[in-house]
Amino acid sequence: MVQNGQITLYTNPNSAFCHRVEIALAEAKADYTSYVIDLNNKPSWYAAKVNPVGKVPAITYGGPQTAPEAPAPESAKIAESLVILEFLADIFPESRLLPADPVLRAQARLFIAATDRLLFGAFIAFFFKYTEGADQVLLDALEEVQRRLPPTGFAIGIWSNADISVAPLLVCFLLMLKHDLGKYPAGQGPKILEILQGPRFARLMEYIHDLEQWPSVRGTWNEVSEASYQRQNR
Amino acid sequence: MVQNGQITLYTNPNSAFCHRVEIALAEAKADYTSYVIDLNNKPSWYAAKVNPVGKVPAITYGGPQTAPEAPAPESAKIAESLVILEFLADIFPESRLLPADPVLRAQARLFIAATDRLLFGAFIAFFFKYTEGADQVLLDALEEVQRRLPPTGFAIGIWSNADISVAPLLVCFLLMLKHDLGKYPAGQGPKILEILQGPRFARLMEYIHDLEQWPSVRGTWNEVSEASYQRQNR
Repeated sequence: MVQNGQITLYTNPNSAFCHRVEIALAEAKADYTSYVIDLNNKPSWYAAKVNPVGKVPAITYGGPQTAPEAPAPESAKIAESLVILEFLADIFPESRLLPADPVLRAQARLFIAATDRLLFGAFIAFFFKYTEGADQVLLDALEEVQRRLPPTGFAIGIWSNADISVAPLLVCFLLMLKHDLGKYPAGQGPKILEILQGPRFARLMEYIHDLEQWPSVRGTWNEVSEASYQRQNR
Repeated sequence: MVQNGQITLYTNPNSAFCHRVEIALAEAKADYTSYVIDLNNKPSWYAAKVNPVGKVPAITYGGPQTAPEAPAPESAKIAESLVILEFLADIFPESRLLPADPVLRAQARLFIAATDRLLFGAFIAFFFKYTEGADQVLLDALEEVQRRLPPTGFAIGIWSNADISVAPLLVCFLLMLKHDLGKYPAGQGPKILEILQGPRFARLMEYIHDLEQWPSVRGTWNEVSEASYQRQNR
């Protein structure tokens, strides 16, 4: 695998979107510099020089190697986790981010298109807002993810960006339920977990177990889960 | 440009999402069969054999050449307009759908990610629902598209999928405003058009003019615009 330019990742351990990019960079065995952006106190240079909308993740690519606090005007600035995942698949074509077969690539992108907003929307509704009907919305979203899985293996059979797109949420939320963390009524976490551990969600749970065991997920997982605990326990 | 398998497009002239795929197929000079799905009376084989969610556009790729009403089990089935645009860029690498440079490809995808739902949401709010504040939502969305354009040329300078993603709406809505078509109060169409023709939107209007003149847009445009009229005039 050839990497032609420097990569600097602007990230935050509380962000599932950032976790996606960290998994993809690990998967590609990329050489990169990581810089944590404090989301409650963003440095002024970040919006001015990296991402005008101020969000993480973003990467700089190419140009001279500089300190992350002084991004070079010559480097490309790329934001949006799913756009970065495609970019990394382009510059690391031999990695397992996207296969070479165009039909499989389309299947990976279709899985992402079908699950991305559905899953994030359901998680926010359940864990962070807990509006009426949020349990059902969460279970429906998880069932839709499960419906799209093949009988065994990863989202398109082999590992791909499709798995990276859902892994950060799926590996995190089981722990949150187990420890009853979130804005839902006390005791609701373990109750939902019990449903998930029943026969209706057997395939999904097997998939989540496979995600947890995958090296690039396991290797990027601890700090994210710990940060989530801290955030939820505040 | 090499095409390795048959392509059948399931489409409808009322759909801006379908228009995207028609432009991309024209751009790639693809050899394909087109089949119109009646959205008010969908044939039962469509969800069963092509797209389980029943929406257009969808394509079949590869497998034996069959009648569109009898899709072969061997062909790949690909749905979602933006996924199909990426697929066509993959199988027609020498077309102008996505450039070879990974940074430019990322810029095209970023433009799409930033404008897709914003623009469709604003159009639906203004033309089909006309909820309170819809004028402002539409103008804000158009300003955001304009803000992301370079001083001249297409969305990333050269022509790409980024332009194809916005062209169907942008070429259609000017005509709808001019003819005062939509659920907004009578007279509101020309009023918004006047704002768009002022100095604030000069760059956007130049861009829309460039889109209208582009061969693959011009060549796929008439039937879509006529269908829109009919729909609106009902």
